[in-house]
Amino acid sequence: MAAISSITIRHARRDDVGVIVAMLADDPLGSARERLEDPPPASYFRAFEALEHASHIQLVVAEDEDGAVIGCLQLCILPGLSSQGASRGLIEDVRVATHCRSRGVGEKIVQWAVAEARAKGCALVELLTHSTRVDAQRFYARLGFQPSHVGMTLRF
Amino acid sequence: MAAISSITIRHARRDDVGVIVAMLADDPLGSARERLEDPPPASYFRAFEALEHASHIQLVVAEDEDGAVIGCLQLCILPGLSSQGASRGLIEDVRVATHCRSRGVGEKIVQWAVAEARAKGCALVELLTHSTRVDAQRFYARLGFQPSHVGMTLRF
Repeated sequence: MAAISSITIRHARRDDVGVIVAMLADDPLGSARERLEDPPPASYFRAFEALEHASHIQLVVAEDEDGAVIGCLQLCILPGLSSQGASRGLIEDVRVATHCRSRGVGEKIVQWAVAEARAKGCALVELLTHSTRVDAQRFYARLGFQPSHVGMTLRF
Repeated sequence: MAAISSITIRHARRDDVGVIVAMLADDPLGSARERLEDPPPASYFRAFEALEHASHIQLVVAEDEDGAVIGCLQLCILPGLSSQGASRGLIEDVRVATHCRSRGVGEKIVQWAVAEARAKGCALVELLTHSTRVDAQRFYARLGFQPSHVGMTLRF
């Protein structure tokens, strides 16, 4: 399929929460973790409100030419002492709507995050991608990311 | 060597910056990235000031019974929509002074971060550790972390 000609990246609004949750749930790993209800459970809105108050985090969505939300990404800018006091960008929760995959949406939204982290003075951008997401790893490698680290998690 | 009997975890202060930078630099990867000068370059203090204003980030140090700083860790609490709007804890920049390794300092400081993330309502704790740090990966596995993800980085 052809690349989507016009993709707009903008900050997520409260009325995007439902479509973002649907994208998070439409995924082999996410389907077991999310609760896809209409309206979305209150815990998602509480998290959205926490994000609105977190000036270091940007939750953004990708819109197609008709204004439909077809992707999302969360970028955190994190100061720290290492690397001579350089900030780093952490990319999380990247998703593209199933029917829009392989059409340049993921690339556009990740490139936005990389440019934004760079503009905010970060020395690097990092992310964790599940070991089973081999396609995602290939995608990020194509954008210049190195599989330099092991991402370790402890779930409660 | 025996475990250090009494380790105190406390928030880092401005006058800890030098010893933290020394720990960050005393490391095969860190030695190439840091600037070990006395006093430390201003960029480290600027980063410390940014951390002081970041209420979601805690930079902590481990003190031995004599009040010497022998370890450090940075914990970020990050809200997000995924996992039903659960926050997650991100552990970064874990270091233990060379002469105090294998004496329980790392375990104590990481366990502090895990407990703190849990107390703040996180559903998981995550970290990236460089692929070459095999000992670190074994250490985190012993504390219950799974090597579930690939940690990808893009340095500018």
